[in-house]
Amino acid sequence: MSLTEFPDGWESRGSIPTLFKRFEFDNYHETRAFLDALAALTEEAGLHPQNINFASTYVNITLDANDEGKLGEDELSLATRINQLFLNKSD
Amino acid sequence: MSLTEFPDGWESRGSIPTLFKRFEFDNYHETRAFLDALAALTEEAGLHPQNINFASTYVNITLDANDEGKLGEDELSLATRINQLFLNKSD
Repeated sequence: MSLTEFPDGWESRGSIPTLFKRFEFDNYHETRAFLDALAALTEEAGLHPQNINFASTYVNITLDANDEGKLGEDELSLATRINQLFLNKSD
Repeated sequence: MSLTEFPDGWESRGSIPTLFKRFEFDNYHETRAFLDALAALTEEAGLHPQNINFASTYVNITLDANDEGKLGEDELSLATRINQLFLNKSD
């Protein structure tokens, strides 16, 4: 799988691959709204990020590989949907 | 200020001090409930942690020093209230 197949802005890290992306916001209110929407999305998808690291104006998300140690369609689809969530934040 | 003055389980880190504590949970449902309650608490207190790092079963919280570069009453009070939130999670 080449890097170009990853959704926009996501990068693969590690030997057991994870997908990582940093999202930046203008203020805590926007960050909070994104976090809440992210929680709802991952709940619905039944897939939870390996790790989320956030402060007032950023959210770093790490998605982990599936049970086979690979990044599969589920992870890529979730990454794409998280991107859409970010793009739609101002709607 | 001696370490013994910090609320239970919180430790000071760094030359510009931060207060750090790790909270562990049995499952994502409990973690999520704690995160939501934490968001409400910090909103009410008007003090936001410097950083929150979480996954399915843990939440790491870092509180930063105030404008004077010291851990003050506000930070210690917030740490205490976060401890209470954790203790009350089963209620």
